[in-house]
Amino acid sequence: MAAPSRLLIRGGRVVNGDSSQVADVLVEDGVVRALGRDLLPPGDAPAGLRVLDAAGKLVLPGGIDTHTHMQFPFMGSRSVDDFYQGTKAALAGGTTMIIDFAIPHKGHSLIEAFETWRSWADPKVCCDYSLHVAVTWWSEQVKEEMKILTQDKGVNSFKMFMAYKDLYMLRDVELYKVFSWCKEIGAIAEVHAENGDLIAEGAKKMLALGITGPEGHELGRPEAVEAEATLRAITIAGAVNCPLCVVHVMSKSAARVIADARRDGKVVFGEPIAAGLGTDGTHYWNREWPHAAHHVMGPPLRPDPSTPDFLMNLLANGDLTITGSDHCTFNTCQKALGKDDFTKIPNGVNGVEDRMSVIWEKGVHSGKMDENWFVAVTSTNAAKIFNLYPRKGKIAVGSDADIVIWDPKATRTISAKTHHQAVNFNIFEGVVCHGVPLVTISRGKVAYEAGVFSVTAGDGKFVPRKPFAEYIYKRIKQQDQ
Amino acid sequence: MAAPSRLLIRGGRVVNGDSSQVADVLVEDGVVRALGRDLLPPGDAPAGLRVLDAAGKLVLPGGIDTHTHMQFPFMGSRSVDDFYQGTKAALAGGTTMIIDFAIPHKGHSLIEAFETWRSWADPKVCCDYSLHVAVTWWSEQVKEEMKILTQDKGVNSFKMFMAYKDLYMLRDVELYKVFSWCKEIGAIAEVHAENGDLIAEGAKKMLALGITGPEGHELGRPEAVEAEATLRAITIAGAVNCPLCVVHVMSKSAARVIADARRDGKVVFGEPIAAGLGTDGTHYWNREWPHAAHHVMGPPLRPDPSTPDFLMNLLANGDLTITGSDHCTFNTCQKALGKDDFTKIPNGVNGVEDRMSVIWEKGVHSGKMDENWFVAVTSTNAAKIFNLYPRKGKIAVGSDADIVIWDPKATRTISAKTHHQAVNFNIFEGVVCHGVPLVTISRGKVAYEAGVFSVTAGDGKFVPRKPFAEYIYKRIKQQDQ
Amino acid sequence: MAAPSRLLIRGGRVVNGDSSQVADVLVEDGVVRALGRDLLPPGDAPAGLRVLDAAGKLVLPGGIDTHTHMQFPFMGSRSVDDFYQGTKAALAGGTTMIIDFAIPHKGHSLIEAFETWRSWADPKVCCDYSLHVAVTWWSEQVKEEMKILTQDKGVNSFKMFMAYKDLYMLRDVELYKVFSWCKEIGAIAEVHAENGDLIAEGAKKMLALGITGPEGHELGRPEAVEAEATLRAITIAGAVNCPLCVVHVMSKSAARVIADARRDGKVVFGEPIAAGLGTDGTHYWNREWPHAAHHVMGPPLRPDPSTPDFLMNLLANGDLTITGSDHCTFNTCQKALGKDDFTKIPNGVNGVEDRMSVIWEKGVHSGKMDENWFVAVTSTNAAKIFNLYPRKGKIAVGSDADIVIWDPKATRTISAKTHHQAVNFNIFEGVVCHGVPLVTISRGKVAYEAGVFSVTAGDGKFVPRKPFAEYIYKRIKQQDQ
Amino acid sequence: MAAPSRLLIRGGRVVNGDSSQVADVLVEDGVVRALGRDLLPPGDAPAGLRVLDAAGKLVLPGGIDTHTHMQFPFMGSRSVDDFYQGTKAALAGGTTMIIDFAIPHKGHSLIEAFETWRSWADPKVCCDYSLHVAVTWWSEQVKEEMKILTQDKGVNSFKMFMAYKDLYMLRDVELYKVFSWCKEIGAIAEVHAENGDLIAEGAKKMLALGITGPEGHELGRPEAVEAEATLRAITIAGAVNCPLCVVHVMSKSAARVIADARRDGKVVFGEPIAAGLGTDGTHYWNREWPHAAHHVMGPPLRPDPSTPDFLMNLLANGDLTITGSDHCTFNTCQKALGKDDFTKIPNGVNGVEDRMSVIWEKGVHSGKMDENWFVAVTSTNAAKIFNLYPRKGKIAVGSDADIVIWDPKATRTISAKTHHQAVNFNIFEGVVCHGVPLVTISRGKVAYEAGVFSVTAGDGKFVPRKPFAEYIYKRIKQQDQ
Repeated sequence: MAAPSRLLIRGGRVVNGDSSQVADVLVEDGVVRALGRDLLPPGDAPAGLRVLDAAGKLVLPGGIDTHTHMQFPFMGSRSVDDFYQGTKAALAGGTTMIIDFAIPHKGHSLIEAFETWRSWADPKVCCDYSLHVAVTWWSEQVKEEMKILTQDKGVNSFKMFMAYKDLYMLRDVELYKVFSWCKEIGAIAEVHAENGDLIAEGAKKMLALGITGPEGHELGRPEAVEAEATLRAITIAGAVNCPLCVVHVMSKSAARVIADARRDGKVVFGEPIAAGLGTDGTHYWNREWPHAAHHVMGPPLRPDPSTPDFLMNLLANGDLTITGSDHCTFNTCQKALGKDDFTKIPNGVNGVEDRMSVIWEKGVHSGKMDENWFVAVTSTNAAKIFNLYPRKGKIAVGSDADIVIWDPKATRTISAKTHHQAVNFNIFEGVVCHGVPLVTISRGKVAYEAGVFSVTAGDGKFVPRKPFAEYIYKRIKQQDQ
Repeated sequence: MAAPSRLLIRGGRVVNGDSSQVADVLVEDGVVRALGRDLLPPGDAPAGLRVLDAAGKLVLPGGIDTHTHMQFPFMGSRSVDDFYQGTKAALAGGTTMIIDFAIPHKGHSLIEAFETWRSWADPKVCCDYSLHVAVTWWSEQVKEEMKILTQDKGVNSFKMFMAYKDLYMLRDVELYKVFSWCKEIGAIAEVHAENGDLIAEGAKKMLALGITGPEGHELGRPEAVEAEATLRAITIAGAVNCPLCVVHVMSKSAARVIADARRDGKVVFGEPIAAGLGTDGTHYWNREWPHAAHHVMGPPLRPDPSTPDFLMNLLANGDLTITGSDHCTFNTCQKALGKDDFTKIPNGVNGVEDRMSVIWEKGVHSGKMDENWFVAVTSTNAAKIFNLYPRKGKIAVGSDADIVIWDPKATRTISAKTHHQAVNFNIFEGVVCHGVPLVTISRGKVAYEAGVFSVTAGDGKFVPRKPFAEYIYKRIKQQDQ
Repeated sequence: MAAPSRLLIRGGRVVNGDSSQVADVLVEDGVVRALGRDLLPPGDAPAGLRVLDAAGKLVLPGGIDTHTHMQFPFMGSRSVDDFYQGTKAALAGGTTMIIDFAIPHKGHSLIEAFETWRSWADPKVCCDYSLHVAVTWWSEQVKEEMKILTQDKGVNSFKMFMAYKDLYMLRDVELYKVFSWCKEIGAIAEVHAENGDLIAEGAKKMLALGITGPEGHELGRPEAVEAEATLRAITIAGAVNCPLCVVHVMSKSAARVIADARRDGKVVFGEPIAAGLGTDGTHYWNREWPHAAHHVMGPPLRPDPSTPDFLMNLLANGDLTITGSDHCTFNTCQKALGKDDFTKIPNGVNGVEDRMSVIWEKGVHSGKMDENWFVAVTSTNAAKIFNLYPRKGKIAVGSDADIVIWDPKATRTISAKTHHQAVNFNIFEGVVCHGVPLVTISRGKVAYEAGVFSVTAGDGKFVPRKPFAEYIYKRIKQQDQ
Repeated sequence: MAAPSRLLIRGGRVVNGDSSQVADVLVEDGVVRALGRDLLPPGDAPAGLRVLDAAGKLVLPGGIDTHTHMQFPFMGSRSVDDFYQGTKAALAGGTTMIIDFAIPHKGHSLIEAFETWRSWADPKVCCDYSLHVAVTWWSEQVKEEMKILTQDKGVNSFKMFMAYKDLYMLRDVELYKVFSWCKEIGAIAEVHAENGDLIAEGAKKMLALGITGPEGHELGRPEAVEAEATLRAITIAGAVNCPLCVVHVMSKSAARVIADARRDGKVVFGEPIAAGLGTDGTHYWNREWPHAAHHVMGPPLRPDPSTPDFLMNLLANGDLTITGSDHCTFNTCQKALGKDDFTKIPNGVNGVEDRMSVIWEKGVHSGKMDENWFVAVTSTNAAKIFNLYPRKGKIAVGSDADIVIWDPKATRTISAKTHHQAVNFNIFEGVVCHGVPLVTISRGKVAYEAGVFSVTAGDGKFVPRKPFAEYIYKRIKQQDQ
């Protein structure tokens, strides 16, 4: 039997980034058709209308995970969550859209990379998705392709690496050119901010000292390496007045650099991730090698245990703006590639399923932010920055029906045994989270409910994004006058 | 002929704190009835419906000025803008609600003060208003009256003075008790943060040095005096976890204290004012005594000329949250009371009419913030903090029809010769502002249009405010668990 | 047999605050007579000359502990280290001068208090000492007595309490007056910077919550209470341009306030103490009540474990300037007065014997500062600020022969079982310190050597200090022009 | 007639970095032989002894200018003060030693450059001098030459450029290697900290905008460009724990980066220069092109007028440590090379003669620092860092007799008309300075007195400097353990 084409979410507290109200939500054809009190008269629901009781529950815009790497070929391996498994896990966690990265090798076509990732994702995704494209080299061709991607392909964000020397890393003068061009074509620049030269030297130094374990990963690229690159990226972007998003902000010092730049009026955004908000780098010293190795990612988690709290405070205060997971998972056997040399451990952690609950627990349950700001940092702000708003990031008439029914009082315990991510380890193992997604609706259909999925590979769609997002470019344009 | 009871604002760009959309706005019976494209079919408007063409213009929620002192008996004089003239001026400037202060003397009843201010305002106001109540002493009676004011009188904010020693000033232990009680009853504490002891000593010192002119006003209470008290207020409020609003933030150092506290997770808000955002304290050294004296207010404007820009950056970044004017005007002849002794100059400047345009010019036109954040800092945030949202601070179905049609491209030059404030001086004299209010609608009626008022004293109403505003208390409650 | 009247310290590395040199030091009649290479020809030492071999060792100016409370009647008890035992312990630790505090009760004579403390100390001290005098109230009499103390009694530093409400605490306006007067008479103002009102309320709150153990001591007066008062003291002192020393800086936030003020050009000094540099406030949560109680002091040690390192960094960098111990010891049975109520635990910890080694270990051995800066922060800077320089704080011809022969490579383990302090507990129990005082010479005589004392009560002398110390007042005077 | 071979400076106040004392100073054979009260009995001076009366005056260690470029071939021109004229001017200003820079082109021998500079300087210098050597490229040869320079040639400081792209600039990975090597061989690394890529792009941008005047020089490389590189240099040096000196610190933000790093325990020093302490970048907007052009240097002076005061506060507080002049002078006709293009204006300003007086005026006369700290920042600290102490930087028995008799109360007005620098412009024109050098003694001979020189080219000597200066390396070594 076909699923009912219409849904009524009844009696919940509809929470937007701006404010909350108790209201019914009527969904038809994948969009929100009506929003208000008592949309359905008492009595039986009409045929073809499924009623979901949300009394006492929250009704949230589905999460937008701004940072994933599904089935990513990386460091001699390939991340185990593919676009199917990864987006299923996302839905189970209350996330209804991911933004992944198409990453060409130096000298290769950006458009080809984009099309490759499309070809991987389109047949598999269970929720909507979009793609950032990485700029890993610079030439007239790259410039032209960036323009085409922006104008014709629905890409309004490009990511540049200041790390991964020789592989993906750009030099300052290249960053300058890419940032200039991003601004010209109305895109936002994203950076992985770590000093790639220092990482390379640091790794050599650690190995020379005989430090081959996961702790060497952090010791060789401590937070100063991240803070330095963060200031550099902001300075270069500032020189051309290009809007900038620093992804996976992992350290107090880097976050402080961003917050200070914002106070100075810079158009810069910071994206902490679930891992950095929910755990820390003391795990690199864990005596179980696999445990430690499963926390290896770049930039590293930081050993200062006050880091997650600090990052959450800045997220709560608006100094950091959006949240991703940097979901890029490798099984223990893959991690084992670096058994004798931490530089060979495939970098990446889980989070696409965990992000919403972890932020609710550490952010909302702790009293650092309220439910509205939770929606803002998990969904609305991303929609605004990446020009998806108000189609995404809001529950309003006309918006996409990407919705989560959220129980703020229930708890669940995160575990690799029960999660829906493909990977055989969870960095949040054992964390008890208030805030549980009961039902996740994607494109107007119930995709996940009480542990049960109703999805088919390809249910999700690629969502193109237009350049010159007003949320960031209104100020830029005004400043340039 | 009676004014049409219905209004249609057609074709404007409706700007809320959250986002903007081109839409028509239908107003009936003082509230917004509908919002959407093409609400009126082509052809003549039906009888009783006035159509206002807003094509190419912005349609904003009316401003909320969180800080005024109309007809305030102060320093041996009384401010010249009364509730009639002052609210007319507000409307001319695009402000549709003011929050004034009822201020009892030490030992006197808060409720009596409240009723006195009501008796002054109710028959005169041309726009909606509300009242903060000052707590200038502490006793069981005060405690009881605060409760009554909160529960029965529509007051959810109390203001405490750390300055004005012997007159209004509270000591730390009294602040502790008042803050504790505010939290108990669900109010927000407001503070005038300056060290009253240091002000008293500083004034004596200046006079002893023979410095009797307006510059002595600032020299005797430099910004350190403000920053100190700001940190003290935040520390005391933090000790009882009471939400706090620091009013008239005038200096870089005080603003930085607030911003830093917010990064640390404190529930604290800062209110810069039009004067501090639009001009500076170099005027105290102006050779024309009246010019200098007309800038005298407490806390003083700061001589550091980079102050306004700094404050605006923090307002744009969300480190400061709401804006008032501290409108409290005295004519030159009143200011002359302090001709030979700056301590006798009645403190106060204009701003209720100027605030919106000054912030637009220095904030939006300069590219520091966009139109949405402008609405947030001039209206929405205040509505949220003082629990008026979404009735005020938003243009949405069901909201009060307090609306401004705003021309972002037109300019006007501020001048005492043309302003509608009663006072014979304007601290923004000669400032050219982009951003002009064309039409101001209050309670669903056109109150001001193209320089012409259609108001009657008493058109405005007192707006009661309930305690435990969700915007601030959701976090407080969660933290206390 | 009388001790030889002359000493030759041969072949050591003489370390001053400024620089080091290998040299012999000849001591006669209590002062340094000569300093240079090979002062004694090869062969036997002449009669009456004792030769101490210091080859491979450091020869340091004896430490000056700027903060002790020997036999202090406090909180219904009296600290167990009296001026005899306490100064013996000092000598064992390499400290040859202490500055204690004469503390009158409110309404009582400062001079009488001074004479009382003199009468306690003079017959007992084994090393030189001086006295700060506390100003615990304000009147014309106090003013007059401060002048007499400064001009006739050798006191150039006064201490004011912002804590200990009702007992010792001064209000802001009193601080203003005392600071003004200090400057007039050429003294330096010292403050115990904590908000006494908040401490009182915080303690009540803790007890009301049923928290009666030592952890309540810190929870009720967290570091914000200290940072607030620190900024307030600096602001008040700044208003009258009085030099200020903030004693026992215990927290990161308070230290940062001082460091920031110094960057702004304020004449302010911070004094961390051995306890704050060497341990932290996590001990308040120790399950053994006596262990926890023995750490109770005001301001409290801080639970943030990164505090000691932070304070040491600022000390190393010159943001903090001098070091004391706040030595004020109570035995377990005395601490037990607060068994059921932390507010009754006599406040105080040990340190007069431990200070030098703890700072060497955490400061020099760790590489944060070099041997010269060690001398500066343990001796020279104090001598300069309190106008004892170059008589004290330096090994130079003409200086007092207060000298320590220090073994930078030896280690010793601190323990209550072996220390020379009277108290039956040591907060540094088990800490292994590099840097061991081998011989301590006081007033030209070997007072302590290899665990053996050669002292008699009264060997030490009261050292008067003149006002207007150049090190602090040269700038003050210049600024005032 | 030969000058008397012995000098007695009688009755002055001898000021060292550490403290002051009234004493006579006896000079023989170029060194200080005695220091004390009344070295000469009343009556006539013996033959061959010249007595200089210093009563009421200060007797200072001669200044050490850590940063000059005499007769530097640069930007198609050559600086007009050669080693003769430049060192004469130095002496006139109270400076008795300069440290210049030998700068090889990329690919060229460091040792050859060193020898070239020696060949220029040796026959000409009128006071002592030393040489930093620039590392402008990296290879095994460079590495080997650095070692030789350190071990055999008396060089313990190497300077690296992060600016002057393609000409002198090193990339991060090169900096890493040079810093590592500096530490290995016991040298200190110096950096010109500006982002060379951004400078190059900024200049292009300015020219493209049609901004060709001197203001383009600053607009194209604003202070963010300097602060960024400063943090980067500190981060790279921190990665290898190499001591670092950031030369010509010109901006508030860069200085703050250094001060913050020092608080964190980094072994980093900052060198502001006379120009940055005494004037500002508003001059770039001066309507007289030559006036503006004469201020062009790299990094630029900053237009924020609060910059000099800020830098002086940090210098006074020890956050900045040493001072140079970056003396590199070009006449107006040379500056005119950039008449139509600011990028062609030879970079450089005067200061070798002015530095001491400017710092006295702005630092000591203003009350920011005292006379001892003045000596520290103009002489002693440099001597310690560059391992010349106590031969230089101190008046003590055995020290070089490089001495200035200084009148702290006299004033002089700086002017190109009267200065002894070769250049036809003075950036401090018209500044009235308290603090006048009356007599300058170099190597034990009066070289300058009351406007008259007694010098011959070649009177000065090259002063070799040994590696592993204790002042910096004691901590480094300890940390590395």
